[in-house]
Amino acid sequence: MQGPVLGEFLGTMVLLTFGCGCVANVLLAKSKGQGAGWVSINFGWAMAVVFGVFTATATGSPQADINPAVTLFKTLAGVYDFSLAITLMIAQLAGAFCGAVIVYLIYLPHWELTEDKGAKLGIFSTGPAVRNIPANFMTEFIATLFLIIPIMCVFSKNVGGITAGLGPYLVGMLVYGIGASLGGPTGYAINPARDLGPRIAHAVLPIPGKGDSDWGYAWVPVVAPFCGGAAAFFIAKALGLV
Amino acid sequence: MQGPVLGEFLGTMVLLTFGCGCVANVLLAKSKGQGAGWVSINFGWAMAVVFGVFTATATGSPQADINPAVTLFKTLAGVYDFSLAITLMIAQLAGAFCGAVIVYLIYLPHWELTEDKGAKLGIFSTGPAVRNIPANFMTEFIATLFLIIPIMCVFSKNVGGITAGLGPYLVGMLVYGIGASLGGPTGYAINPARDLGPRIAHAVLPIPGKGDSDWGYAWVPVVAPFCGGAAAFFIAKALGLV
Amino acid sequence: MQGPVLGEFLGTMVLLTFGCGCVANVLLAKSKGQGAGWVSINFGWAMAVVFGVFTATATGSPQADINPAVTLFKTLAGVYDFSLAITLMIAQLAGAFCGAVIVYLIYLPHWELTEDKGAKLGIFSTGPAVRNIPANFMTEFIATLFLIIPIMCVFSKNVGGITAGLGPYLVGMLVYGIGASLGGPTGYAINPARDLGPRIAHAVLPIPGKGDSDWGYAWVPVVAPFCGGAAAFFIAKALGLV
Amino acid sequence: MQGPVLGEFLGTMVLLTFGCGCVANVLLAKSKGQGAGWVSINFGWAMAVVFGVFTATATGSPQADINPAVTLFKTLAGVYDFSLAITLMIAQLAGAFCGAVIVYLIYLPHWELTEDKGAKLGIFSTGPAVRNIPANFMTEFIATLFLIIPIMCVFSKNVGGITAGLGPYLVGMLVYGIGASLGGPTGYAINPARDLGPRIAHAVLPIPGKGDSDWGYAWVPVVAPFCGGAAAFFIAKALGLV
Repeated sequence: MQGPVLGEFLGTMVLLTFGCGCVANVLLAKSKGQGAGWVSINFGWAMAVVFGVFTATATGSPQADINPAVTLFKTLAGVYDFSLAITLMIAQLAGAFCGAVIVYLIYLPHWELTEDKGAKLGIFSTGPAVRNIPANFMTEFIATLFLIIPIMCVFSKNVGGITAGLGPYLVGMLVYGIGASLGGPTGYAINPARDLGPRIAHAVLPIPGKGDSDWGYAWVPVVAPFCGGAAAFFIAKALGLV
Repeated sequence: MQGPVLGEFLGTMVLLTFGCGCVANVLLAKSKGQGAGWVSINFGWAMAVVFGVFTATATGSPQADINPAVTLFKTLAGVYDFSLAITLMIAQLAGAFCGAVIVYLIYLPHWELTEDKGAKLGIFSTGPAVRNIPANFMTEFIATLFLIIPIMCVFSKNVGGITAGLGPYLVGMLVYGIGASLGGPTGYAINPARDLGPRIAHAVLPIPGKGDSDWGYAWVPVVAPFCGGAAAFFIAKALGLV
Repeated sequence: MQGPVLGEFLGTMVLLTFGCGCVANVLLAKSKGQGAGWVSINFGWAMAVVFGVFTATATGSPQADINPAVTLFKTLAGVYDFSLAITLMIAQLAGAFCGAVIVYLIYLPHWELTEDKGAKLGIFSTGPAVRNIPANFMTEFIATLFLIIPIMCVFSKNVGGITAGLGPYLVGMLVYGIGASLGGPTGYAINPARDLGPRIAHAVLPIPGKGDSDWGYAWVPVVAPFCGGAAAFFIAKALGLV
Repeated sequence: MQGPVLGEFLGTMVLLTFGCGCVANVLLAKSKGQGAGWVSINFGWAMAVVFGVFTATATGSPQADINPAVTLFKTLAGVYDFSLAITLMIAQLAGAFCGAVIVYLIYLPHWELTEDKGAKLGIFSTGPAVRNIPANFMTEFIATLFLIIPIMCVFSKNVGGITAGLGPYLVGMLVYGIGASLGGPTGYAINPARDLGPRIAHAVLPIPGKGDSDWGYAWVPVVAPFCGGAAAFFIAKALGLV
């Protein structure tokens, strides 16, 4: 029972379990990691990427995108046909949703102890530090470029071949860098499934004392990464990386 | 003088020496790392795993489980017969006990200077942030799945072979991720020996001003990881990872 | 469209996007990483180096200097002729400028919310913790030695060949160490382009409420790293590293 | 101009430049890393080890001990004869002294701004959190065992060969773990040269407002690591690691 669809589903599920989990740990009341801060969140997301990629690879998706913006990039590059790409993106979105549900279950007693509605949403989805839609869009767009182009550089023929196992680690540490450096204004979604799947989970789960799911902002971390993925393709092509 | 029993004993001893040690450093009065926080603890446990695995491998246990839940998983997968598995688990428990005793010795002058009975127990064993036994059990059960399945993914044939030395490092960083992301509610035991061995040490050592060893909770971080190990086997089998 | 000039331009641009970005995240008002501190900045710069090097390598500069002091070192070692070296340094400076502009754009709404003029300059360029030009010069000079000599050691024939991908990671972690250990007095420029390019960007960009660009200090983080690069050559030659 | 003596000198110098430097950065007044804390110090020392080992290897000491306790261990194991071992230890001590002097120079304007005499000594040498000589001795003795035995495990034949470059990184991360876990009571000297060389530097350098160099404690971080190195040999021999 392996294949690209399952691999993308499970890989993205692992990504969001660790990813939303590390935010929950820092923000939820009485959690042992409460207040552990930005470094803890950044390393948590980095390891989320590392083991999401390993899970996807091991269960049938050698491409291990776990990100619809990366899948769009590769579709433009001819790796997938359009209908497979859509299927993979749906699998990624479903995996992201399930990962968020797992985090809900893991932290089950902590939701009702936490007052802050914004924190509860922030565990699931990203939001802007300063709401300014054009600026927020630009941030997510640029950050997605700085995700995809460096990945293509790491695996480029000029680098000469990364040892198995080192590749996923480096991609995770790249995401550490994106968080540390570019994540301040919008919380670095850089992945439509990462944001939308957990937002749907936030909307449907019976979270005590939750606020609204901020659907007005929801399109930004979906559309901007897709635009970034498409733009990355043309840049990578111009640079001879694809 | 090498072999699987010695290797599991020593590897688990190293795991707990570093693991309990990093909590002691943060929680004990006048320790130089006092208050260093969750990131310090998470990286300490990560390196505990890395060098526990190397120690087990080097001293005769190429499987380097250092965790009875992993040993149960591999027993179901046919790696061990039942009686060897029990022997290895006892070796792991004994190693965990000895690692905790070493931490007691290393921090010898600090115990009587520390008032907080809960902190003193927390150095040895895990405990729930919010006591809710079904929820705590579920957290430990799920976290154990997210330990074992990703390990099987890292070493799966699809990944294609990890360089010697990188494997233990990745497993340690996985445990970093589990701590950062899933450790908030229960302190991520995810290993029956890791919790029970030090709890016995807490009970028998002459720690000044210690409180009780919370035996009412002790079964959760033993039984839940075992259930997680068994469930992980069936999931890994369905996914073609074993 | 690949080559050493493009590679150095893009690699240094990536270096500064991540590098200035991680400082912006910690210092700018309302940024999600505000107050995340020195560890966050040091790891951000480390990853800036890792992926700057990968980007340079992948886009046509196998030397991947992304630092005019390193380029000077290699020019003395006969890797480049003088006119190519000047071209590469200009490319690095231009890349550094562009990376700083990208950070300005990513954090666009945060500049006017931030009062502290010194913080705003500190995101772009380094400055002394205690202004003492001879001492500051010495710090930057020594720190540059401790950048270049260890890099030459990592890639020396005695070490015996680093796996592709591990090299850039190690150089990044070296820069982590330089920041953690030697960065306290001057903020570890150790790279003329890293400091001058963003300082020019600070001077020309329409940053709300910015102060002056401290041109009086600007020559120190340019000249001292160049002197360090030249001195490193003679030391490396004496040590048989080049 | 390469060889074991030079290699051990330079490697230990690099070790102490980064190692004392990361403490100076956290403790000295007005340093940019002031208050960055235990995690910053631990990672700084880890990278100190990584690049100390690379420097020693590259400049002529393939053993790259940079620690007289490790040299004693290897002398007992027959790697060195006694007179070479003494020479290497003197080189290590001299390198450690020079590394500490470099840190003094790098932080030159900060010494007079710092009131705390204990902090100024703590940048150079270790000291006990709670002064209890037998306990402090035991802590340093055990911590040295947990340095040397895991190193021998990492490079054991059972592990099967570490990629060039990964070995030094793993040894550095082991020292991270020792700091995080076992460093609380005594500041983890675990290396006679690391402690004595900088203590001599503290005694002779014209540091403004310095206190005494605590020579009453100085023998503990020298003798205990040597005893640990000797004991490690017998343990490693019994375990089949040498």
